[in-house]
Amino acid sequence: MITEITAEALDTDAFIKEKVLEIKSAVKNDLAINALSGGVDSSTVTLLGHRALGDRLKTVFIQNGLMREGEAEQVVGLFKTLGVPVKVIDARREFFAALEGVEDPEEKREAITQTFYKDVFGRLVKESGATCLLQGTILTDVDETVAGIKRQHNVFAQLGIDPQDTFGYAIVEPLIQLRKNGVRTVGRVLGLPTELFERIPFPGPALAARVIGAVTEARIETVRKATTVVERLLKDSGAFQYMAILHQDRVTGMRDGQRDFGLQIEVRCWESIDARKASPTRLSFDVLEKMAAEIVRDVPGVVSVTYNIASKPSSTIEAV
Amino acid sequence: MITEITAEALDTDAFIKEKVLEIKSAVKNDLAINALSGGVDSSTVTLLGHRALGDRLKTVFIQNGLMREGEAEQVVGLFKTLGVPVKVIDARREFFAALEGVEDPEEKREAITQTFYKDVFGRLVKESGATCLLQGTILTDVDETVAGIKRQHNVFAQLGIDPQDTFGYAIVEPLIQLRKNGVRTVGRVLGLPTELFERIPFPGPALAARVIGAVTEARIETVRKATTVVERLLKDSGAFQYMAILHQDRVTGMRDGQRDFGLQIEVRCWESIDARKASPTRLSFDVLEKMAAEIVRDVPGVVSVTYNIASKPSSTIEAV
Repeated sequence: MITEITAEALDTDAFIKEKVLEIKSAVKNDLAINALSGGVDSSTVTLLGHRALGDRLKTVFIQNGLMREGEAEQVVGLFKTLGVPVKVIDARREFFAALEGVEDPEEKREAITQTFYKDVFGRLVKESGATCLLQGTILTDVDETVAGIKRQHNVFAQLGIDPQDTFGYAIVEPLIQLRKNGVRTVGRVLGLPTELFERIPFPGPALAARVIGAVTEARIETVRKATTVVERLLKDSGAFQYMAILHQDRVTGMRDGQRDFGLQIEVRCWESIDARKASPTRLSFDVLEKMAAEIVRDVPGVVSVTYNIASKPSSTIEAV
Repeated sequence: MITEITAEALDTDAFIKEKVLEIKSAVKNDLAINALSGGVDSSTVTLLGHRALGDRLKTVFIQNGLMREGEAEQVVGLFKTLGVPVKVIDARREFFAALEGVEDPEEKREAITQTFYKDVFGRLVKESGATCLLQGTILTDVDETVAGIKRQHNVFAQLGIDPQDTFGYAIVEPLIQLRKNGVRTVGRVLGLPTELFERIPFPGPALAARVIGAVTEARIETVRKATTVVERLLKDSGAFQYMAILHQDRVTGMRDGQRDFGLQIEVRCWESIDARKASPTRLSFDVLEKMAAEIVRDVPGVVSVTYNIASKPSSTIEAV
């Protein structure tokens, strides 16, 4: 049973002190390793771990080929300015190989989890000599996994999996009692810059969660280009989250007066407090039509664009 | 080469007289048959043929199982008030058998065409003793078929198909020089009621064109229910056309707090003058969200609803 610390009850300085001690005592004189995605959770854990362990924490950014345009460079650059060196590991080949022929959303997550923890991380832990892995799991991840709504890739104990047995290393999850707003407070006090908090949430399986059906390099490149358009046009929308989703269905379209059986991109933009309930953002049709036109213009093969108008529930935030 | 008669150049009374003579001279003392779908084109042809031939024109409504809720009853009832008897032919079994396993849009149209003309109509023509088939082909159908944008099911000569050889009967197409607005004028003068002109355009392959992927009775029933909601909520929108499309892709949703991997309906609502160019109707989010909520409520299995925001081109009006 995990005891929640609400944002109101959170004594940030005391929390940081306690977690620094906890990390120190778990790692002892050994090395620890953590994977930074650039999200608020893993960024906060990186700074917390760095404060506890200094250069005994090895922080890696795993380039799985499923990231957004320029994402690795941005994250590494930001942490460089914070004095935290981040090593980029190119694991694209391994992830795409693991995802080949996988269409079921749950199996996609499983393929990414297995590749991440067992193959890529297993190898990195061995190479680094680390005995401990720091992770940014938060309470909402636990809730959703237990409820069966979505399997988060970073929740093991709740699923009865012992990472020591299964993967060969211990896992420390210093943020597991917090929800997103608590994590933001801790991250801010630790020195994370404002730009990082302004980043919208992004799923663990990254762009693989934004592709319905088969995940290939070509399909990821398609949804990556659409994501660039959507994030550029909606960054000032004030919305909770927004995304582009590549469908597997093909629809009839026209190019140069001829029929062109093409791709469809679905755009979702959400209003939400905590992701438990959400409704579509009431964007203007000027923005919606401009977005559709730019996606059709910039993303090869796309002939049709839709906008989600359902709420959560019955929808979920992500489609996959 | 077909000479266009524009709505401006149309002398309606002279046109009707000429076409009545043309039909009489084609049919001579034999019987003719025509299939009424309830659209403006086939309704106008029915009245024109009835004026030329009286009860020597046998008008049938083919129930292919792909029609909207209550459509057969409505159309037959309307023509009864106009003094034109219409016979309903139940051919559902044949159409669904022909569509089994067919996913490609072009093959769907082909399966429907073949079933309609060769199987069902071939049989009806033989049974009726008719030597001639009246058809509501208009000039836009010809243009689109020749351009390769969409194969209309009622254009043969342009495709080099001789219906006499292929199907065993002659085809008379009295409206082939007109476009939609010309047909409306003729229909109105012949006595078609206003309610018929207020019906939005509906494709030849009916709800089979509103289902991406396999056409089964269950999937048609799903899109039929969604169509009922969309038509009810948008009937006063003043839009050129609106529709519900059932996708084959499944998306993650929630029901009773549990994950439910469900169906998605795409709604399209178009502003257009002549269907050659079109843009999405700028519906209010009050209407869009109400529509999504009612579709999720009324259509079993649906968890997600989108609204088309692309224009034609690059989109087409229909998705299939």
